[in-house]
Amino acid sequence: MAEAPDRLAEQVRFIVEIDKLKHVLRQTWLTDGSRRENDAEHSWHMALMAVLLREYADEAGLDLFRVLTMLLVHDLVEIDAGDTFAYDEAGHGDKAERERRAADRLFRLLPSDQGRELRALWDEFEARETPEARYAAALDRLQPLLLHMPTEGKCWRSHGVTADQVLERCSPIGDSSSALWAYAQRLIREAVERGYLAPAPE
Amino acid sequence: MAEAPDRLAEQVRFIVEIDKLKHVLRQTWLTDGSRRENDAEHSWHMALMAVLLREYADEAGLDLFRVLTMLLVHDLVEIDAGDTFAYDEAGHGDKAERERRAADRLFRLLPSDQGRELRALWDEFEARETPEARYAAALDRLQPLLLHMPTEGKCWRSHGVTADQVLERCSPIGDSSSALWAYAQRLIREAVERGYLAPAPE
Repeated sequence: MAEAPDRLAEQVRFIVEIDKLKHVLRQTWLTDGSRRENDAEHSWHMALMAVLLREYADEAGLDLFRVLTMLLVHDLVEIDAGDTFAYDEAGHGDKAERERRAADRLFRLLPSDQGRELRALWDEFEARETPEARYAAALDRLQPLLLHMPTEGKCWRSHGVTADQVLERCSPIGDSSSALWAYAQRLIREAVERGYLAPAPE
Repeated sequence: MAEAPDRLAEQVRFIVEIDKLKHVLRQTWLTDGSRRENDAEHSWHMALMAVLLREYADEAGLDLFRVLTMLLVHDLVEIDAGDTFAYDEAGHGDKAERERRAADRLFRLLPSDQGRELRALWDEFEARETPEARYAAALDRLQPLLLHMPTEGKCWRSHGVTADQVLERCSPIGDSSSALWAYAQRLIREAVERGYLAPAPE
C-alpha cells in the first residue's frame, strides 16, 4: 500500500485484513439454497435488520449506532477462530479461548484508541448485559431462523437438529424483544408442522 | 412464513427478499483474488470503514447512524438492476431509470413509513448533497481501490482501465475528505508505478 501517515496506514491494514471475513462460511444456507452464507453477508443482513426492527426492542432509547457497530464487528474473531456451529457442543469447548486470542490479534492491528473501542464493543456483545448487546444478540438468533424457512430447514435437517435445541438457542431473543420472541416461537412451531425441523425427542 | 402481525410480516418479507443482494456480483475481486465480491459483502465492508475512518471527514458532526443506514441500503436496487461496472459507459445510459424502478418495487415491500425512510436515504445517497451522503460516496469509491491493490489491479487489468479513468471515478472522495483523497491519489500513482494500472493515454 502507498505510504500514508502511520495512523491511516494501520487503519487500512485492518480494513484489508478483515476482507477475510468474506471467506468464513456459516452453516446457514442462502434463501435459494444455492450455497452457504458467509460472515460478512450475515453481518450486513443483521445490521439492516437492526434498523428495520428497532421498534420491537422492549427497552427504549437504544443507541443504534452502537448496535450497528457491534453487529459489524461481532464475527470478526471468526477470521482466526472459524465459525463454530451453534449446535456443535464439542466445538464450543474452547470457542471462548480461540475467539479471545483472535480478538487480541485483530483489534491490535488498529491504532490503539480504535482497537480498544472495537474490542470493548465486541466484549459488550459477548457479555449481553446492555440493552444494545441484548438487541444485537436477538438479531443474531433471529436472522438464521428467517433464512432457514425458505430452504425448508436445509441446515437443520442436514445436522439432525431438533425443535427443543432451536428453542433454547433462540431464547435470547426474548431477553430483548417479547414481540420478536413470540414471532420466532411461531416460526419454530410452523417449521415442525411443515417437517422442516424435527420435533423434540419424546 | 408464520402468521404475524401484518407490519412484522411485511418487514420479514423485505428482509428475506434482500437476501438476493448476496448474489449480485461486482467487478471487484476479493483481496486473495479467489472470486469476485458481492454487494452484501461490499456493503458490510464499507459500513465498517465508515466507523473506522470517520475522523477524516472534513465536515464535522456527521450523523453516523444515517451514514451507516445509507451504506447498508445503497446497493439494494442492484437486486433488480444489477451491478453496472463503474467504467461501463453503455451500461450507465439507462442505469438511473433501472435503479429508480428497482427502488420503487423494493422499498414498497416495507410498511409505508419505513419504505419512505429508506427510499429517502437512498435518494440522499444518490444526490450526494449532504455531508453524510458525500462521506458515504467517498467510501464507495475508496473501498474497491483498497481491494484492487492486493490483487495487483486484477480488475483494472482485465478491463483495460487507465489511471485517468480511476482518478475521475475516485474524485468524489475529495468532496468529503481531503486526507482520504490525498491517500487515494497516492495509491493510484503507486498502482501505475507497479504496473497494476495502465497510465493515462498520451
